[in-house]
Amino acid sequence: MAFLTDEKLVIVGAGGMIGSNMVQSALMMNLTSNICLYDVFPPEIGPLGVAEEMRQSGFVDANITATADPAVAFKDAKYIISSGGAPRKEGMTREDLLAGNCKIAEGLGKDIQKYCPDVKHVVIIFNPADLTGLVTLLYSGLKPGQVTTLAALDSSRLQSALAKKFNVMQNKVTGAHTFGGHGEQMAVFGSAVKIDGKPLNDLIGTAEFPEEEWEQMKKDVIQGGSAIIKLRGRSSFQSPALMSVKMIAAVMGGEPFEYPAGTYVKTDKYDHIMMAMDTTLDKNGCSFKVPQGTAEEVAKLDASYEHLCKMRDELVTLNIVPEISKWSEINPNL
Amino acid sequence: MAFLTDEKLVIVGAGGMIGSNMVQSALMMNLTSNICLYDVFPPEIGPLGVAEEMRQSGFVDANITATADPAVAFKDAKYIISSGGAPRKEGMTREDLLAGNCKIAEGLGKDIQKYCPDVKHVVIIFNPADLTGLVTLLYSGLKPGQVTTLAALDSSRLQSALAKKFNVMQNKVTGAHTFGGHGEQMAVFGSAVKIDGKPLNDLIGTAEFPEEEWEQMKKDVIQGGSAIIKLRGRSSFQSPALMSVKMIAAVMGGEPFEYPAGTYVKTDKYDHIMMAMDTTLDKNGCSFKVPQGTAEEVAKLDASYEHLCKMRDELVTLNIVPEISKWSEINPNL
Repeated sequence: MAFLTDEKLVIVGAGGMIGSNMVQSALMMNLTSNICLYDVFPPEIGPLGVAEEMRQSGFVDANITATADPAVAFKDAKYIISSGGAPRKEGMTREDLLAGNCKIAEGLGKDIQKYCPDVKHVVIIFNPADLTGLVTLLYSGLKPGQVTTLAALDSSRLQSALAKKFNVMQNKVTGAHTFGGHGEQMAVFGSAVKIDGKPLNDLIGTAEFPEEEWEQMKKDVIQGGSAIIKLRGRSSFQSPALMSVKMIAAVMGGEPFEYPAGTYVKTDKYDHIMMAMDTTLDKNGCSFKVPQGTAEEVAKLDASYEHLCKMRDELVTLNIVPEISKWSEINPNL
Repeated sequence: MAFLTDEKLVIVGAGGMIGSNMVQSALMMNLTSNICLYDVFPPEIGPLGVAEEMRQSGFVDANITATADPAVAFKDAKYIISSGGAPRKEGMTREDLLAGNCKIAEGLGKDIQKYCPDVKHVVIIFNPADLTGLVTLLYSGLKPGQVTTLAALDSSRLQSALAKKFNVMQNKVTGAHTFGGHGEQMAVFGSAVKIDGKPLNDLIGTAEFPEEEWEQMKKDVIQGGSAIIKLRGRSSFQSPALMSVKMIAAVMGGEPFEYPAGTYVKTDKYDHIMMAMDTTLDKNGCSFKVPQGTAEEVAKLDASYEHLCKMRDELVTLNIVPEISKWSEINPNL
């Protein structure tokens, strides 16, 4: 079996539903021959069971290890995906999770700096991912292009909703992207969307797709996570797992990743923030362009940025991160 | 994206943990462009959520449907995998599940005969699978080679245990197979096993691997399912899902399946039974050879067969299946 790499991939939170799915997905995609399952819970009540299930699934040519010791987990790690936060419960906003999960992100960043400063790429998916990713980046000492966050599900939710609405295969819906925060103030960009080659803009406001329906669809996309909780009786786990593994695959040099990623942004307009941009993930890590949109879309993106800035500033107040002026003392790359 | 087939694959029990993993695995392996998620529970509390997660995972070129209506689910089905039984709880033996799940299997068989008599292959994984598979075959009217059951996990558990014991990669352990029932009386065959090319027989009874340790390992393999429950706090779901999808992949003409499958057996010695044999799964379905072993191993297989016969006869007593002499009236292929 040809693996994409033999470098070590660490799955943080591997005992959980998302983490265990990441492990399986990474193995099914033949990403690496060397995968380590890490969880803060004792490995006997999670990661070891997942590792054993993988062995029993017939992944016979990969080295699958499990540990609760960060020194063991992160030693020689070259790629990390972390779902190791507290889960979101029905009715909670991502923001409710802010303080607790950002403290976890601080710990993760410090572990990375301590045990694997040579890591190539880290994908953060625990919510609010824009903030946990930012905190991880800050404390890890890594470069901005080395830490990304899962933002893709907003875009794929929009793509799915449009495909269902217009009764086309989902791959006929192109350019359906959301940018900014992966939260309740995300910016849904519709102006670049095409439905089977036809601009969505030509359809909005017609009898087939009244303006109000489009507005409702955007709201539904923003609430897409809650919708899955209602439909499954639990929060989504397969889609965040698989999407984040696909992100790491792209950085390993595998299949290109087709959806936006959350990335550290530094432009004249936006700074000291992590949010979804028009990104490319490849062996050099993450690079981005600011997405082009209508004035209204850009205004939405600006509002999303402002919302994220407020949450970031809350982290300063909470003493989880220092004032921005001092960030470069912790991480000279910022 | 090239799919192995465009024929319809139905996942029964798709709202559950095993079923939803099957769906993801089948899509990741590009098995088919046409996958239907069926569950007896209303699709709004399971399958629809799973289908939506798959869409959000970026499976953009497959037709993913969800239904609670068997007429819709099975129409034009060419491949079926069913995990749609009651789950096994800690402390329960597979046999405890016998009556309830065999009634479910009867219903599945009748649905197949009614809605998709042209189905090509059915894989049954709900326990006790040897019996539920047998009942499904009987009532479906299908040919013996068209219905198989998941038996592979016993063999992969043995392979995993030996690899850990001798500290070799799992793919260096060959010929580690168990046959007969997928239950507490399975027959573990050790005589054909090689560890990195060295016969296991030459290792058993040495200081490195005393006879008692081998006996304990066989017991542990038989209890492998319970061990996962302890290690994960829940029954295994990733390994049964993935293994059963690999079985269907082989029948679709994909990668060969490397482990034994449970199959309907008719030989001079064994008859009217479903159990794990030395099987081959390919586009023609399942064919088998009786495994070769030592006198002791063959005796274990005979005992496993006798145990299965008792459970089968219990089904007669329970009026779930008629006397064997009348089976051919229900299914002329038996």
